[in-house]
Amino acid sequence: MRIALGIEYDGTDFLGWQRLSHGASVQASLERALSFVAAEPIEVTCAGRTDAGVHGRCQVVHFDTEVQRDMRGWVLGACSNLPTGVAVLWAQPVPDDFHARFSARSRRYRYTILNRSIRPALDARYVTWERHPLDAERMHAAAQALIGEHDFSAFRAVSCQAAHARREVKALKVWREGAHVIVEIEANAFLHHMVRNIVGSLLPVGRGEQPVDWVAALLAGRNREVAGPTAAASGLTFIGPRYERHWKLPVEVSE
Amino acid sequence: MRIALGIEYDGTDFLGWQRLSHGASVQASLERALSFVAAEPIEVTCAGRTDAGVHGRCQVVHFDTEVQRDMRGWVLGACSNLPTGVAVLWAQPVPDDFHARFSARSRRYRYTILNRSIRPALDARYVTWERHPLDAERMHAAAQALIGEHDFSAFRAVSCQAAHARREVKALKVWREGAHVIVEIEANAFLHHMVRNIVGSLLPVGRGEQPVDWVAALLAGRNREVAGPTAAASGLTFIGPRYERHWKLPVEVSE
Repeated sequence: MRIALGIEYDGTDFLGWQRLSHGASVQASLERALSFVAAEPIEVTCAGRTDAGVHGRCQVVHFDTEVQRDMRGWVLGACSNLPTGVAVLWAQPVPDDFHARFSARSRRYRYTILNRSIRPALDARYVTWERHPLDAERMHAAAQALIGEHDFSAFRAVSCQAAHARREVKALKVWREGAHVIVEIEANAFLHHMVRNIVGSLLPVGRGEQPVDWVAALLAGRNREVAGPTAAASGLTFIGPRYERHWKLPVEVSE
Repeated sequence: MRIALGIEYDGTDFLGWQRLSHGASVQASLERALSFVAAEPIEVTCAGRTDAGVHGRCQVVHFDTEVQRDMRGWVLGACSNLPTGVAVLWAQPVPDDFHARFSARSRRYRYTILNRSIRPALDARYVTWERHPLDAERMHAAAQALIGEHDFSAFRAVSCQAAHARREVKALKVWREGAHVIVEIEANAFLHHMVRNIVGSLLPVGRGEQPVDWVAALLAGRNREVAGPTAAASGLTFIGPRYERHWKLPVEVSE
């Protein structure tokens, strides 16, 4: 039997999603909790790995088990065995051909920048601080060059292990809400550090240090070394993947 | 010279506002940072003390000093000597008859309830979790009985040291935003635990366990023992005080 779960997590106190030998990961915490509920070892596969400090609003995983539990039992049993920074939001049986990673049609990320002269005290784990005034409209205009299918080598981490750098950005919006500038991006898939590298190149445009068409030039140049630095992890939240409706998953992860 | 400061803090890791001998307080952290900047002991007076775990969006304090620093120097100097959970947002010279507590015309608090079946993982430090479905409109209707000047003994902590229990509630709104139910309340002043005790009595109304007129009956009865329990600290944020415009303080703390 294959089961899908929706997972919320605060990435601050984890080394990232992926199970690691040298510290706490969201995956290891989740597998430990599920294995406790199942009374047998459970391994999960996620829609998209996140780095240390990056949060998850609705990560999706699947796992296989022969153990019989009702869905409420998986959710409540896992929650009561997870650390406070991780929660299972829902559980749902899925067909054997559903795959949390390969069935996902797109992924959505949100990046939140606190744009004021003083560093954050409240919400510090959920924002990245930028003290120089940002022009969000300018950032939005610059970002539109990234929409569509392109080679994103300019925004790809050196450590990225993907076979190629072509990805399709379906939507990319930048807007201001009071002291916050928010970047939301949806793509079929992401390269390692792609969102943080894009934000890192939108920031100089927002500060007026680079022209609006700089981002388009970076994309065309495919050279990571001339693009902006990787923006901090704290401002980044993986909103979640999106699947075709026929899987009948909750609305927040459906197309 | 008298100086007013706006202070933001995350109350999670503090025993509360007030200086205490047995642990970290926001006041002690702030006084230590300001004393370092002034190179002489500084003591501050705040608009409203907050309890352990309660946050501050724009607390206001004043202090007196003969030390000459520009306002930017106080702000940046204090921020760089404060723990990450506290920040000075602004500093402004004020007349000697300004008093952070006595000049305040009102105080505003916001209480945020995460209303879903699963406990929070993200934002856990800034919400209180309520798993039973709440009817926010019912809570709002019940709360309207509290508006105006009343004896709030029913919502006053046993430990409250105020001379009397008469306070004037100027506004009290309850509304839903997705999975969150938000309570905002403005009063001339508050008794100890008054906001958390009011929320604790709105929750049974929201769950349908008490009738809408229960809150009015509690108020009239003036008996703390029959009202609801004190709601958790984590959901509470002191938005800040409000002063008359002639003090020329920033807009977020002016009438």
